[in-house]
Amino acid sequence: MQLLNKQSSLLNGARPQARKAVRVAQAGRRTAVRVSAAVHLDFNTTAFKKELAVFAGTEEYIVRGGRDKFPGLKEAFKNIKKIGVIGWGSQAPAQAQNLRDSIAAAGLDTKVSIGLRPDSPSWAEAEACNFTKKDGTLGEVFDVIADSDLVVMLISDAAQAKLYPRILAAMKPGATLGLSHGFLLGVMRNDGVDFRKDINVVLVAPKGMGPSVRRLYEQGKSVNGAGINCSFAVHQDATGNAADIAIGWAIGVGAPFAFPTTLESEYKSDIYGERCVLLGAVHGIVEALFRRYTRQGMSDEEAFKQSVECITGPVSKMISTKGMLAVYEQFNAEDKKVFEQAYSASYKPALDICFEIYEDVASGNEIRSVVQAVSRFDRFPMGKIDQTHMWKVGQRVRANRDEAKIPLNPFTAGVYVATMMATVEVLREKGHPFSEICNESIIEAVDSLNPYMHARGVAFMVDNCSYTARLGSRKWAPRFDYIIDQQAFVAIDNGVQADKEVMAEFLSHPVHSALATCSSMRPSVDISVGGENSSVGVGAGAARTEFRSTAAPAKV
Amino acid sequence: MQLLNKQSSLLNGARPQARKAVRVAQAGRRTAVRVSAAVHLDFNTTAFKKELAVFAGTEEYIVRGGRDKFPGLKEAFKNIKKIGVIGWGSQAPAQAQNLRDSIAAAGLDTKVSIGLRPDSPSWAEAEACNFTKKDGTLGEVFDVIADSDLVVMLISDAAQAKLYPRILAAMKPGATLGLSHGFLLGVMRNDGVDFRKDINVVLVAPKGMGPSVRRLYEQGKSVNGAGINCSFAVHQDATGNAADIAIGWAIGVGAPFAFPTTLESEYKSDIYGERCVLLGAVHGIVEALFRRYTRQGMSDEEAFKQSVECITGPVSKMISTKGMLAVYEQFNAEDKKVFEQAYSASYKPALDICFEIYEDVASGNEIRSVVQAVSRFDRFPMGKIDQTHMWKVGQRVRANRDEAKIPLNPFTAGVYVATMMATVEVLREKGHPFSEICNESIIEAVDSLNPYMHARGVAFMVDNCSYTARLGSRKWAPRFDYIIDQQAFVAIDNGVQADKEVMAEFLSHPVHSALATCSSMRPSVDISVGGENSSVGVGAGAARTEFRSTAAPAKV
Repeated sequence: MQLLNKQSSLLNGARPQARKAVRVAQAGRRTAVRVSAAVHLDFNTTAFKKELAVFAGTEEYIVRGGRDKFPGLKEAFKNIKKIGVIGWGSQAPAQAQNLRDSIAAAGLDTKVSIGLRPDSPSWAEAEACNFTKKDGTLGEVFDVIADSDLVVMLISDAAQAKLYPRILAAMKPGATLGLSHGFLLGVMRNDGVDFRKDINVVLVAPKGMGPSVRRLYEQGKSVNGAGINCSFAVHQDATGNAADIAIGWAIGVGAPFAFPTTLESEYKSDIYGERCVLLGAVHGIVEALFRRYTRQGMSDEEAFKQSVECITGPVSKMISTKGMLAVYEQFNAEDKKVFEQAYSASYKPALDICFEIYEDVASGNEIRSVVQAVSRFDRFPMGKIDQTHMWKVGQRVRANRDEAKIPLNPFTAGVYVATMMATVEVLREKGHPFSEICNESIIEAVDSLNPYMHARGVAFMVDNCSYTARLGSRKWAPRFDYIIDQQAFVAIDNGVQADKEVMAEFLSHPVHSALATCSSMRPSVDISVGGENSSVGVGAGAARTEFRSTAAPAKV
Repeated sequence: MQLLNKQSSLLNGARPQARKAVRVAQAGRRTAVRVSAAVHLDFNTTAFKKELAVFAGTEEYIVRGGRDKFPGLKEAFKNIKKIGVIGWGSQAPAQAQNLRDSIAAAGLDTKVSIGLRPDSPSWAEAEACNFTKKDGTLGEVFDVIADSDLVVMLISDAAQAKLYPRILAAMKPGATLGLSHGFLLGVMRNDGVDFRKDINVVLVAPKGMGPSVRRLYEQGKSVNGAGINCSFAVHQDATGNAADIAIGWAIGVGAPFAFPTTLESEYKSDIYGERCVLLGAVHGIVEALFRRYTRQGMSDEEAFKQSVECITGPVSKMISTKGMLAVYEQFNAEDKKVFEQAYSASYKPALDICFEIYEDVASGNEIRSVVQAVSRFDRFPMGKIDQTHMWKVGQRVRANRDEAKIPLNPFTAGVYVATMMATVEVLREKGHPFSEICNESIIEAVDSLNPYMHARGVAFMVDNCSYTARLGSRKWAPRFDYIIDQQAFVAIDNGVQADKEVMAEFLSHPVHSALATCSSMRPSVDISVGGENSSVGVGAGAARTEFRSTAAPAKV
């Protein structure tokens, strides 16, 4: 992704004052704003069409996907005879199968192959999904890398951190290294090294966990445009058509819309977002809310409904379809007051932790911690997070659920929306584009992740994600829990009333209009995830140990 | 601190195998072991006497302090005409007053001066403690530094991180920079710079928060040898007598015993220890225990007694005087079983977090996070941690306390001792000397910190410590809480029985004999800390905002 001019680089930089000035200047000359020079991140595509979209007054180029765009793959993949998808974790089974299906639908002969360690327990699962050694679509990692024109690198972040020198060395000159996460850039920066110059380096990052990428794509086969939106980036363009390759990959995995970003912006917002409202914060606050409600005398079941069920059910649904303001506005006057008090008390404590997370991510600390944690896995594998009393209660609640009767608790909604807005606000202050902010703070939460918690509880959401996400969620959930309990709840119990300024900021925040733009780019169907004992939406071959697919014969 | 030979450096290195081999070799030739070549960390002193002590079969030199050693200050401080104590936080009021009193008792004319920012709110407190501009014992920071032969640098870690280039530049050639924490070395390593070569760099680190350093010294004026033990290190010896200066400083602040270490070993073990059982872990586990007990049907008051009171009262007392094994051994057969089950289930989860903390400290992550957090203080000051329901209950419990009736709950004891042993074990595996392990994992907990929680609750303990400690405690307490709840309690509720191997390791762990050696070096009196509304033991002039001394006129 090249920045076109000084203004764009200011927009993307870490100087909020400057950014603000540019935005104000742009707003002041709104008639002249439709020139590429003023657009946030530009890119060249001949295979697809770029469109301008306005997010809260800032223009960004985007690309529209859908099955009707598959013919463009011919041009995008003109030099891609073989796509090697390396790994078989959360993303790989989904992306590999989606790409294979899309390429077939487009009538190309590009081959999608899986690369695995020879002793990998995933070998059987990949075979069950019709990737076979016999027809050359299943092979050893470095053989597949050496033979591929596009290497879609989907082994775990920590494995990438360890293996990247060998991976880079194995690649053909002029080939494209495809990442679904900028994590590796963070690692290489910590190590003080750069990518070799004769390859493309691009990114396509679906805004949802692997199983949802496959699930929505499957649902979307009969409905044009169903899939998980992606961000994409061109970090290095050795062949001159790296953007087309990246966009083709995004459309191939089923993205209804693709949004440009940079590797750096992506890894910061992604690692940050999953530690905040996407996984960590939502886990932490429901633990705090459940405790609070039971201490106030609610039954366990009722407390679970008023906390978890409320968030993963009606609140998520409403944010997904109508935005955050709608949640507030549908309350009556009395409930609005409860929301306001809960929101006001929770926003700043949540913002505090969000800033800490962002700066720990940006400084390289979180990446270093993840690499260290993974190196301890032999001795300390990650433990289960959903065997406690509260989540056992949840199992019972889900078994007897009447979707129509899930309460929309104004206190819970206030705490949750405050945490979401805190996640948003830090990204805004740190200069991320609004499409990225909306995706990493809101859309991924309500459209991709919360439905998984709704279906089977917290671990089913968290532990279907990457190691980086699972570790981050375990690390930060308790921090949100404690700070909300120690500061927000204490303030409320001491009778501190709603803060008018905080509420005014919420009501007038530019993210609402940006989200409205994003909502118009929503997948055309809702994701459908099966409950306990169902394999629907788990994603064929999802290789997380705890949630190994029931669709493919598992062999650990 | 110079390492004498290859064996010593192996002992101090990060290669447990090698260390083990050396220890075994030493054990095998026990008759020849009393040679300096085999001793862990050696140093030269002419002013004081070094003694060999055996900690779990490993020999370490130590120095005995006490008021009868004050005459040695004459030799140690022969070139120290002025000691500048910079700052007025947790440690400075204590160390400055203790040094002044000791120097007076030794009949020296060395002057102790306080260096403060001209606009510091602590100016009045220092004056109330008889440091005055008029007699040249109170001045501006850099004036005092430029004029001092020993600069005792006790401004906050974050301030040191920011100001160290100016501090170093201001010092006289041949002067001694005295640190009470190796934190600055960690910062300078992150920055890739070194100390200037023409100064001494030494460390004296009291194994207790500032107020306890003053309190025990005051109690000890009538009892030779009462005070807080210190570790000391010589990082750079420009004048040839840096060790004597360091030891003199340690004895001057009242250390009954001083143990050699290195700056690196000290900052790692110190920042680690306070995040583990000293502050973070003990806070986290009592929150988890209190919740568990109330959910099991105990009254709030009873649950507080069975968790917090049990740990800060009888368990701490027993560990302090008789060691960890004694806690286990005094239980009857039935209670032993309860202890064993709680210990077994808690040890490994606690060890998991302890390893994570150690590696986050050793890699520089924690230091970087602290520096970042402090830079956010203007917008996000640290919040209160003791205003929640549980700690309000605690206030009532303390008000009606009958010390003799505090229960010794075997389940609580098992969880606590497991957390303490986990803290110990990581330091042992990472190659720290046993004197340091005992101090940073056990003695500081039971002799210095827990008594503060016993007196007035968790914040009174945590928030009387440094910013680095307060931030670390807030960061890691919730992690211990969650992992104990999610793994240990779940295992116990599922009927998992005690692990014989884990118990055998506990019972035969070398730390018990090392602790027995350390216990023989215990201060000759117990610390006495006043309860609510008392200023006893708060430390005159302790400048933590929340716990500003009532002994001196406070001016924020």
